[in-house]
Formats: sequence, structure tokens, C-alpha cells
Amino acid sequence: MKFASRIARLHASPVREILRAATGRQVVSLAGGLPDPDTFPQLAGLESQRSQYGLTEGDLDLRQEISALLAKRGLCCPPERILVLNGSQQGLDLAAKLLVEEGTSVLCESPTYVAALQVFSLFGAQLEGMAIGPEGSSRQDLTESFRRCDPAMAYVIPSFQNPTGALWSEDAREALASELDHRTECVLLEDDPYGELWWGQAPPAPVASRLRKAPWIYLGSFSKSFVPGLRMGFLACSEELITPLERLKQASDLHSNRLAQGWVLSDLCDPNREERLADLRARYRFKCDVFAESLKRHFPNAQFRKPSGGLFFWANLVPGRDLRDIAHLALEAGVAFLPGEHCFPSAPDLGWARLNFSHASVEDADRALGVLAGICRSR
Amino acid sequence: MKFASRIARLHASPVREILRAATGRQVVSLAGGLPDPDTFPQLAGLESQRSQYGLTEGDLDLRQEISALLAKRGLCCPPERILVLNGSQQGLDLAAKLLVEEGTSVLCESPTYVAALQVFSLFGAQLEGMAIGPEGSSRQDLTESFRRCDPAMAYVIPSFQNPTGALWSEDAREALASELDHRTECVLLEDDPYGELWWGQAPPAPVASRLRKAPWIYLGSFSKSFVPGLRMGFLACSEELITPLERLKQASDLHSNRLAQGWVLSDLCDPNREERLADLRARYRFKCDVFAESLKRHFPNAQFRKPSGGLFFWANLVPGRDLRDIAHLALEAGVAFLPGEHCFPSAPDLGWARLNFSHASVEDADRALGVLAGICRSR
Repeated sequence: MKFASRIARLHASPVREILRAATGRQVVSLAGGLPDPDTFPQLAGLESQRSQYGLTEGDLDLRQEISALLAKRGLCCPPERILVLNGSQQGLDLAAKLLVEEGTSVLCESPTYVAALQVFSLFGAQLEGMAIGPEGSSRQDLTESFRRCDPAMAYVIPSFQNPTGALWSEDAREALASELDHRTECVLLEDDPYGELWWGQAPPAPVASRLRKAPWIYLGSFSKSFVPGLRMGFLACSEELITPLERLKQASDLHSNRLAQGWVLSDLCDPNREERLADLRARYRFKCDVFAESLKRHFPNAQFRKPSGGLFFWANLVPGRDLRDIAHLALEAGVAFLPGEHCFPSAPDLGWARLNFSHASVEDADRALGVLAGICRSR
Repeated sequence: MKFASRIARLHASPVREILRAATGRQVVSLAGGLPDPDTFPQLAGLESQRSQYGLTEGDLDLRQEISALLAKRGLCCPPERILVLNGSQQGLDLAAKLLVEEGTSVLCESPTYVAALQVFSLFGAQLEGMAIGPEGSSRQDLTESFRRCDPAMAYVIPSFQNPTGALWSEDAREALASELDHRTECVLLEDDPYGELWWGQAPPAPVASRLRKAPWIYLGSFSKSFVPGLRMGFLACSEELITPLERLKQASDLHSNRLAQGWVLSDLCDPNREERLADLRARYRFKCDVFAESLKRHFPNAQFRKPSGGLFFWANLVPGRDLRDIAHLALEAGVAFLPGEHCFPSAPDLGWARLNFSHASVEDADRALGVLAGICRSR
């Protein structure tokens, strides 16, 4: 494993180190720049002890609950290796700061999450794509991709991949884990924002849980299963990575919002959480089914696969048709969608579209697809 | 002005660009990954329209209020050039990403804010310190410092500087503005977390408000005047900088917590806000006065200046005495403080301590200073 050269210049905050040394002891602190807690106004839903500056890593009670949540997904990670984030997007920023500098080889699925490409490119990554099918990457594709680019980081979204909706099978996950364990230089960055948005069957255990030696970072989000406006996510990681990641978080924004941490904690402790998620899944399953019907009706020749979780359809709407000019015309006609070209690390395929089915009402979505189909026919 | 080379690789998010083009029009969006708003639980204090993903730049109503707040401070900046941040620390991260790469010359006060040094170093800055007195840097020191290092960025905290408590005078601010306006390559980064924590007189208008040509970024915080646990801050900037800064924010964490944005907005609109701040100032003035008395009593030879705002005393406790071994002994004895050495960009002076007076009770602070004095006498 090789950190970006900037990490050699990453120092701990002396204030935070002093306060850490004082944890659990009766210490009068003149060290930090903490306001007088008696000056804090009372805010509804904010326990007063969460009004003050908090720990960079996040509140311990929340990290304990996240640790328990991960155990249910099959990933064993103590609270000490969990970092609460300002949305899981922040985990991409921290991972890039840790590992990526000009020319660093980063392997990712092709296509993949647009905003991950944005961050990795910013830090200078040499992006390498690996093909994925509906059940992930084949063992042969994996091995070839790794051999070709010898990546410092492998970025994957194994559960209801963005944008394709792919759900990596047990086999594909095992193959990736085994490939990583046979290398010494590559860190797994596993992004799992949709892991709770399944219908049918829960996804197999994370790739990270299958590793024996390789270093890893796993990202989770509460934006999809709780409230996106709170901007709450987290990372879990292998032991050698937590200290530099925590320092990077500290340098980025000291720590995450504690009011939101309190709300996420109360949700995780809510005995009705599973019931709430079951309702959410039923609603999304319904929207997904109706969307698939609309898509078939408006685009009879479209290539797509109905996802069994997540938020997106990935569709080749009119095979052979370049979609680049359509996005602009669609917007004029009141319909927004993401042309697939943006999702490719290189060599974009121009016929695909990423279509979100969770947000619009089923009626609006059907109408929007009708408008899109009309545009495709007329041009 | 010269951006870091990574900025050439900073692309806008296509999803956000599509949604921006759709602003104000009736558009059915299948573009983003937005959850169904009907799935959001009701949270106390969170208006339902703030539950969804929001704008990278922050909610417009909040940015309008921040713009009005800045106007009162003498800084004219429209909402379009304001970016809501996850605490003003995030502004340091964004400014460093924008401007700093290996070897970039950054001029800052010596001593200065520890966590700013941490971020600038991480990105590879060549740090250059300029001496400051209680009223800022002299015109001659300024000119010499700029000539010596020809900085790409000048970082200053002109109001109740951390750690010295210095309040840059009108003259010093004008001198800095004039120096910057005579250069073409240097961006001002003005950090103002304590601007509302004054007693006596409000600080002079920001340096940024005095510039005619030079590019600038101004950072503000609601951690000291409202609630630190919310992690809310903002930046305002000159026109040529807002687009790359917004994209950097987008790549970092999409946008800031909207629940906290709602709370800060309601505070800024609260007709009793000035009264609340007056109470806060009176409380801090009292704590500051008592702390100064305690300091004099326990350290009769100490060199320090009682600040007229902010959160810190900067004191040479026992002139000639190296304080490095004291911090550890003090912690053993139940007292934490920040040895001043950490605050210097280079060549630390080892006799100074940064002492916070806002957090501990006046009794605890007095006791802590007594403990510190005992240790200094006994060793």
C-alpha cells in the first residue's frame, strides 16, 4: 500500500492530541477554542451535550450503533475504526486525499458513479475501467483489469451499482477479495450507499468482509434510507488506515454535525426502523415495477434490466442512437435525465441513459418517458 | 492569480449542471439520485423541504441573510458569491485545494491558527510567516514579507487573531489591501471566526472589503456566536473564484447539512439576535477580565495583552522558560493548554502559551492557572 506523498506532511492536531490524552480524566481545558456552553441556545431535537464541538471521529454512541449495523451486514468493524462523515461523498474525498496523486492508477467499474470520477480526477488519478455485468465483474475480467493497470485503489459499488444497478454475486465478491488479497499495493474502496434499498433479497456480505490481508475502506450513507438533507454517512476501514483518515477528516472540517448525528442515532435505535425500511422498500419496489412497464411501453426496443434495489435504471433507450443531443432537447421539453456518457472513466458508450425512478411520482415518470420517446422518434 | 494544477482537472457535476439548467422551470427530473420525499421521517425543527438533497452552494434564503450580515460588517457580497460550509475549517480545505500544491508560497501571520497550518502543509505549501503586533503587521513588515516570498495566497485573521488576540487596525488593514492590490498573483484568504465576539468596539471592516482588484476569500463561522455542534460556516469570495470553489465543495461533500442551515437561518432572522450577542459579549468580557486578573496573580512576570475579543490569551508565562515539557506535566496534573510552538509556521518561539478563557468556569480557570504556575515554579 502506498499513500499519496502529501500524507507524509499530515500532522495530528496538537489540540486534539492534548484533549485525547485527557479523555476520561478530570481535566480543566484551556487548550481548545471552545465556547462557553451556557451561551448555546436550546434547539429542538439537539441534546445540550451535542451542542459543543465534538470528536473528529464522531460521537461514540453513534459509532457503536453503526458498528452493530455493519455486523448485521456481515462486516465486523469496531467503533474505533468508524469515522462519521458529512455524507459518504466525503469518504471519496478522504480516500482520494489518502491515496491519489498525479498518475495514481485507480481501477473502477465502467460505468460508475459520476461524482467519484470527479474527485479521483481532481486529485490526478489515472482512471482504469473494468467491464461489469449484472452480477459484477467476471473472474477473468477482474484478473486482467488488475494486471493491466496494477491499481493503488480499486473502487467498486457492489450492491445496486450506480448507474447499472448491478448486484455483485457471492462469487464475484469472493473473486475480487481474492484478487485483492493476492496483492500488497491495492486498497479496496467499497461504496455502499444503496445496501439497504433492496427488495427481494438482501445483498451478500460486503467485499471488505471477505478480505484477509488487503487494506480496505467501506462507505455507508444515511441519505437514502433516512434523510438526505442531514448529510450523514460514515466510513469503516482496516486498522492501518483509520489514523490518517481521521486526521484528514480533522483537517477537512474538524468533525461532522452533531445534531444530525443525534437524529441518525435515534433512528438506528428506533425499534420501528426495520418496519420503516420495509415500507420504504415496498414503495420503491412498486415504483420500480411501474417504471419498468413505462419504459417498455415507451421504448419497445430498449435494452435494460429491472434492478432489484437502488435508485436507477440503466437503459440503452434506442439501440444505436447517440443520446448526447437528446438531453438538451429533453430539458427544453421539461424532462431531465443523465446521459450515460458521463459515467464512463474513459471511452464512453453514447447510447445509454441513467434514469432515476425513486423521486418523481409514477405518473410524472411515465409522462417524462413519453416525452423522451417523442423526442427520440422525431429527431 | 494561479490555481493549483489540479483545478484544470476539476469538472462540474453533469447532474448538478442539468438540474441547474432546470431551475425555476417545471421539470420532471430523472437525473439525480433523489429519494422519494414521502419516505422522509418528520424531524423536529426540520422543515420538510429541507429534508431533501439541496444546493451545493447552500439554501438561498440562508445565503441572503449571510449577505445581509456581511453588509453590516462592511463587506458587500451578493448571495451568488456565498458558499455555505460545514464549518469555516472547510473553507481552509477548499482554498488549499484551489491554490496550494507542492511548493506554493503561502504567507501567514506568525504565530497563526494551528489547523490552518495543518491543511496548508498537507497540500504542500511553503509557509512563510510575517510578524504581527497587537494591531497587525506594520506596513514595512508587510512589504518585506510579500517581497521575500511572493506568495500565491496570504492568510490572515485580522479580528482577534488566533492565537495572539491581535486586532488589525484600520491602517494595517489598508496597508495589506494596498499591498495585495499592487500584486496580481496573490489571493487574500481572510479568516474571521471571532468577528462577532468583541467587547468595547466592533472590529474595522474586513480587509476583503478594501480591495479593488485583488482576488479574495472571506471565511465566517457560526460556531462561536451560535452553536459549534452544528458545524456551520460560510465563505464569500470575489467573482472569479466562486465557480471553482463551488465545484470543490461539490466534490468534497455535495452540500452542507440543511437542518443546521435552517437553524442558522432562524437565528439570523431572530429579532432578539443582537440582544443574545450582547449577553454573550458581556459574559465573555467578564470571563476575560477575571482571567487576566488570575493570570497576573499566578504569573506576576508574564507578558501578555488582555484581548478585546475572541477566545484566547497569548502569554509568555515565565519569560525565558521553554514551555515544551510543561504541557505534559500539566496534563498529568489535570490542566490542558496549547504550547505556543505549534502555532508558528517556522522557527517557533518556545516560551508562549495559548490559553482559552471562554470554556472553563472562572473558578476552574483560576485553579488551572494556579496548577500551571506551581509546575513552572517546581521545575
